[in-house]
Amino acid sequence: MQRKTFRNLQCPIARSLERVGEWWSILILRDAFYGTKRFDEFQRNLDIAPNMLTRRLNGLVEEGLLEKHQYSERPPRYEYVLTECGRDFRPVLLALLAWGNRNFAPEGASVQIVDRDTGKVVEPLLVDATNGEPLQMGKRHVVKAGPAADERTRARLSSAASHMTNPAKTAAPVA
Amino acid sequence: MQRKTFRNLQCPIARSLERVGEWWSILILRDAFYGTKRFDEFQRNLDIAPNMLTRRLNGLVEEGLLEKHQYSERPPRYEYVLTECGRDFRPVLLALLAWGNRNFAPEGASVQIVDRDTGKVVEPLLVDATNGEPLQMGKRHVVKAGPAADERTRARLSSAASHMTNPAKTAAPVA
Repeated sequence: MQRKTFRNLQCPIARSLERVGEWWSILILRDAFYGTKRFDEFQRNLDIAPNMLTRRLNGLVEEGLLEKHQYSERPPRYEYVLTECGRDFRPVLLALLAWGNRNFAPEGASVQIVDRDTGKVVEPLLVDATNGEPLQMGKRHVVKAGPAADERTRARLSSAASHMTNPAKTAAPVA
Repeated sequence: MQRKTFRNLQCPIARSLERVGEWWSILILRDAFYGTKRFDEFQRNLDIAPNMLTRRLNGLVEEGLLEKHQYSERPPRYEYVLTECGRDFRPVLLALLAWGNRNFAPEGASVQIVDRDTGKVVEPLLVDATNGEPLQMGKRHVVKAGPAADERTRARLSSAASHMTNPAKTAAPVA
């Protein structure tokens, strides 16, 4: 792992990224959601070198996103299943899927979310869980320092909030 | 860049990860949402080596997520602003933020989404944009092959769908 630990460890996005490490880990989690459990299945699906796969699987187990279960004693064989924290990663995968479809699939979608009741393709949308209102960042909704924020985080977010209040400020004039 | 191009390029998650590259890129995008635009601001906020920052910023410009604008002629100075595609990445960041808060903030949240109308903290939830119904993957909602899927993608997703139909199947018995 050639990663470094981020200085601003209060940021929940940085903490999340520390756990998923890099994109092999994210693709392993994707395949775990598709039902992949065994080493050789992951290897075949992902076309990944065995030593890299071992490292990534062990990392995900250490971080508490996968659990390793022995399913055969002789020979010893293991499978990897999502923990509760790993299953909780699903909204991130679905948001990545939707972003990829919207922006990088000019030939049309190859993978879609479908509502089995209606048969219709679903476009996921982020809303406030308590009232179902769509998130409107920079307008109705803002990112703010929480109760555990230190001074550095507070300072950064208060300058961020003033930017996010007015999206026009981030659309820089071309000098 | 020591990344490889993924074999299953039809997957929109893999395509998305190809664009954001790795987590430095994601943290740069996060800071762009907070209003950061200039090289030295990114460098100070992220505590990142200048050559790495240059590479990541150029990568995000090449992928169409940031646009480079000159704001000073003498000396030549540039700023980086989110494109439409870059702004569209926001749901992924918010999903990462929520996952981090739920799982890796035992001391309490340092960064939160807040509704300015009510002052309340918002827990984001993914719903179907057309009817507001929460996504219930593996139950009401499934991931399926779309119109542009090739044979390989279809085969993988049909075996995935059978797994995701019944979440119990993925909870492996401990042998």
